[in-house]
Order: sequence, then C-alpha cells, then structure tokens
Amino acid sequence: MPLNTVPFVSVDHMMRIVLDIGVERVLVELADYVEDDFRRWDCFDKTPRVASHSREGVIELMPTSDGEVYGFKYVNGHPSNMQRGLQTVTAFGVLAAVDSGYPLMLSEMTLLTALRTAATSAVAARHLAPADAHRMAIIGNGAQAEFQALAFKAILGITEISLYDIDPAATRKCVGNLRSHGFDIRVANSAEEAVQGAQIVTTVTADKQYATILTDNMIGSGVHINAIGGDCPGKTELHRDILLRSSIFVEFTPQTRIEGEIQQLAPDHPVSELWEVIAGRAEGRTSPDQITLFDSVGFAIEDFAALRYLRDRLADTRHFVELDMIADPDDPRDLFGMLMRAREYC
Amino acid sequence: MPLNTVPFVSVDHMMRIVLDIGVERVLVELADYVEDDFRRWDCFDKTPRVASHSREGVIELMPTSDGEVYGFKYVNGHPSNMQRGLQTVTAFGVLAAVDSGYPLMLSEMTLLTALRTAATSAVAARHLAPADAHRMAIIGNGAQAEFQALAFKAILGITEISLYDIDPAATRKCVGNLRSHGFDIRVANSAEEAVQGAQIVTTVTADKQYATILTDNMIGSGVHINAIGGDCPGKTELHRDILLRSSIFVEFTPQTRIEGEIQQLAPDHPVSELWEVIAGRAEGRTSPDQITLFDSVGFAIEDFAALRYLRDRLADTRHFVELDMIADPDDPRDLFGMLMRAREYC
Repeated sequence: MPLNTVPFVSVDHMMRIVLDIGVERVLVELADYVEDDFRRWDCFDKTPRVASHSREGVIELMPTSDGEVYGFKYVNGHPSNMQRGLQTVTAFGVLAAVDSGYPLMLSEMTLLTALRTAATSAVAARHLAPADAHRMAIIGNGAQAEFQALAFKAILGITEISLYDIDPAATRKCVGNLRSHGFDIRVANSAEEAVQGAQIVTTVTADKQYATILTDNMIGSGVHINAIGGDCPGKTELHRDILLRSSIFVEFTPQTRIEGEIQQLAPDHPVSELWEVIAGRAEGRTSPDQITLFDSVGFAIEDFAALRYLRDRLADTRHFVELDMIADPDDPRDLFGMLMRAREYC
Repeated sequence: MPLNTVPFVSVDHMMRIVLDIGVERVLVELADYVEDDFRRWDCFDKTPRVASHSREGVIELMPTSDGEVYGFKYVNGHPSNMQRGLQTVTAFGVLAAVDSGYPLMLSEMTLLTALRTAATSAVAARHLAPADAHRMAIIGNGAQAEFQALAFKAILGITEISLYDIDPAATRKCVGNLRSHGFDIRVANSAEEAVQGAQIVTTVTADKQYATILTDNMIGSGVHINAIGGDCPGKTELHRDILLRSSIFVEFTPQTRIEGEIQQLAPDHPVSELWEVIAGRAEGRTSPDQITLFDSVGFAIEDFAALRYLRDRLADTRHFVELDMIADPDDPRDLFGMLMRAREYC
C-alpha cells in the first residue's frame, strides 16, 4: 500500500464486513482475539483513559500498545443524546505502527464496540459460567442486548433467553431482531420473572444512576452474573449484598474500582482480573454453588483486540477506502516544496 | 449536513485550501486564531498530552476543550524515520461537539501543524521582538524553516533572512523554495555568521540531543530568540548561559519545564507564559537591550486554534469529503436492527 494513505472502514463498510463473514462467526473470532490479548496482558501499556467531562457527558481517549502496534479509541457518552435522536455513544479508533508512528487503519467503532463488548462477556462466561448453563436472562433490551444474546449463543451454545426491560417497546424490538436467529425466547413481565431458571443473568440497562436492577433474593446459588450496564462513576445495577456473596472478576482493577459495580465496595475488597483466570494465574469458578460476577466496564485492550481482528480481515475484503492522511514529500525535509509543487495540479 | 458523516480534510485537500487562500494569508489568519485562543486561556481544559514511548519514538494524543468544542491531535515523533524515507512527524486531528460528543471534522495535521507552529512563533515575536526588527537568522533549514520565514514576513514584515544548516543541501532546498517569495536571502557558512546583524534568531534544528546551536557570545543585547527545535526531554539547542541572560516566555509551564530549553534550568527559574503577555497580565519586552526568548515546544491549544480556523474555512471550500463515521440507526436502541436491515442493500 502507498505510504501516504490509511485504510478507513466506515459504518457501511463495517456492516458489509460483518454481514459477509456472518455476525456469529465475527463474535466467535473476536472472542478469540480478545482472549489472546488478555492472555498476553503483561505485554500491554495500560495507560488510564483520558476523559474530558462536561455537563452533558464525557469524551474519552483510550490508548494502549503491545509494543508493536499502538491503538486508541475515541468514544463519547452522552445519555441525553437519545432524546435528540442521536446516539448515546459514538466511537472510532485507530491502529498505528509503533516503530514508525504511522497510522495503519482508521475505523468506525460504534458497531465494533458493540461486538467486542458482547464477545468479551462471552469470553468471561466461558471461564466463569456453570458448565450446564442453557438459559440466560437479559435485563435491559437496548442497543447491546442482541449482541449479547448472539455472542452467548455462538460461543457458549445458549439458546434459551428471557428478556425484560422497563420499556416493553425495547423488548419488542429485541424479540423482533432475534426471532430468526434460532432462540427460544421468553418475554418476562419483571426482572424477577426473567431471572427464574436462568444460569446466566446479563444486566445491560442504560439509566445513569445508582439503580438496583437485581436485588439479593433474585440471585440463587451457582448463577453467573454478566454485569455490563454499571460502567461509570455513579452508575450501578446490582444491590451491594449480591456483590458480597459473589466471586468478583474485573478487567483492570484500578478502572473498575471507579467505574464498576464494585464502586459500592471497600477499595480493598478482593477481586480477580479476568486475564489472570485466562492465563491460569487465578482460579475462575471453583464450585457449582458459587455465584460468579463479571463486573465489566470495557477496557482499551478489548478495543485493541477488535481493531487487530478487523485489520487482519481487511486483506480479504474490498470494504474499505484509502484515505490520503499522511503528508509524504519526496524529501522529508521538503514539506514546503511539496505544497508549492501542488500548485501545478491544483 | 447529515448526522452520520464527518468532513475529512486530506493532505491533498489541505494543500488546495492553503493554495486557494494563499500561504501568507493563511499564516496571518491562523496567527489571529492562535492569539484569540491564547487570550481566553482560562476557558481551556489543559490536560497534559498522553505519550506512548518506544525505542524508536513516541506517539502522543494531545486533547483540549474550550467547553463548547473538543479537539485532539494524534502526533508521532520518530527521528529515525527520515533514514527510511518516512516523515519524522505525522499528525491528524479531530474536532468534536462537547454537547453531543459527535465528531465535527477530521483533518490531516502534518501541514497544519507546520503552519500553526510558524504562526505561533510570529505571534510570540509580535509581542516580544524589538520594534525595529528587520533581519532574522534561521538556523536549521529543514521542514519548518520556510514556514517560519513566511510567517515572520507576513505577520512582522521581516524580509531579510540569513540561513544556516550543517547540511548545505538543506539550505539549498530552503533558498530554492523561498527565492520567489520576496526575501533578501543571505546564506551563511556558520551559525555565528548567520546571527550577525539579526534582531531575531530562530533555531529549528532536528538533532535529538543536548546540542549547543547558539553559544553565549553569539547573542547580543536586544535580540529575540525563537527557539523551536528544543521540544522534548533530552533535546535542547541553546547554551544554558543564554537562558540565564534572557527573559523567558513559554506556552504552558509544566510542559515546557520537561520538554523545552528550560529543562536545563532549576525547576523554579522564573518564566512568563505567552498568553499572560497577550492578555495583558504579564509584561513582554520592557527595554531595547533585553534578550527575549520564546521557548516553544508546541501546545494543544495551538492545534485547537488551527483546527477551529480550518473548520471555519471549510464552508467556503469544496476541498473535503464526508466520511460515514457515525452509526445512526433510526431508533438509537436499534443498532442490531440497522445491521440486519443492511442485508437488503449489501
């Protein structure tokens, strides 16, 4: 490829790539990339995200590097956007070569983030959920719900799902979207009803507050809780008593202490990091009665793995364009000459 | 403009925009944007840059916000790139709306950074150089040299320049590029010769080391030094004794203490910030004999001002394309449905 251009994957390209490969296969392959990168956790530069807060929301840059490739994601979170017909979250990301600093790829990441979040949940469940899990409750039926359902079907073989949302329209949308994907779907009238008979409980609600989507009495022994929605300061979904009964697994402890469900607990409450379980350095589920909790907030290495996956797939697809993003004069010292010579063809 | 697209300014677009407006006029207008943003310094969120260092170089993200608009620049610095025929520095940047988090513009920033660096130097000199300045020495005749010369001509009326570089080929390139731009150019055989009779001395060399481009005896009273090249830890251009005789002006003190010429001085050595001079909160040049030094390392607000300028000019130009970067389902909660419906036209 020419030196001065960078492949760009638009939203439309991303949809075509995902549809060409197949959503479930993308989720399976993404899960492997996430697991591979979690396994080599020590290779990564784990800079904290850089957040710019405003009254309306937050804009964040999430950089990381494995020493060979550098990546970052731009992502915003603006809860009030939905009322204006805008996305609450939009995202794009970049990979670059560490040895030259040249960008390697620019991509939309709204869809890619939805896919990597679901794939990461399924990776955690692969290590933590009870072996006989066959039913999952999904509480919160917004933009992430279908991706969670498909990831758990593709990666763990979960085909029975029960759905609940305080807004029945969200559940109807979710049922409509999942109808043709081979699920046995039950619509519940309450969160209590949804969790009955479920070995896995996914909470993925959107309210930005200290909420109690699950109370202590709703969670029986042996359940795996996949808590996705409590992902920033002031936003949680689980009653504190559930946390006290659970073995807690997180992505990156310093970040989850601030953003996750465990912001409700003492700063020294014991937790394990998921990568430790994957790398065989910590125990996952040790008994059938144990309640396991994946307190997920999203971490830069997941985005890195997703961008890495996308880049590896780009070679097989026509679904990108080259952007002329890098000034490339014949003599690197002659930037001004390059500009002046452009007069000839402008 | 549609909600889901973001205007993108490529290198080619940027060259066309600059040539359409005229390089000198761009520098004049950019200087005003930089000065305006320095004047309202207190409005800005001044996050330190986030650097990822490697053996070969550094990749940095430089974010800032004025509360209404958010901007960041991606920039790398890889000194060894030049030997491989690559740019030492490449850059691109983004503006976004603080109230929605939506990106407003994506642009190449290699050329734009060269322009804003020169414009910022001229802004500093407008406040610090002696009133009768008519000759500038430029030591280091690489990629930034011509932009410096044109900015000082357009903004301060400097038309006499003397050039020196340890590599005569760099000087020849610079003379060739500037020949038709109305300068009286003298080529010097040494840095000593170059500074003779110059009221302004610009140092803009590329070596990544503690260098001594200027020694104490070379700088007479009344001179303004525009020190551009000493811009990262371990890289300086001036002998320490010059600093001790100078009134020192910087962009953002915490950053310049680490990256600028003043890394050679005690951490409490008195300096003024340029914005204070512009806003009338600190004195600039107070006597004709005073040596003034602008110890420039580049700061996020300059990039912000440059992106803001570019965005304001975009309306008058055809030189950009719209990128489909933002997933925009009809119902924000129906990201999955958007993906599935794309099957119909993919």
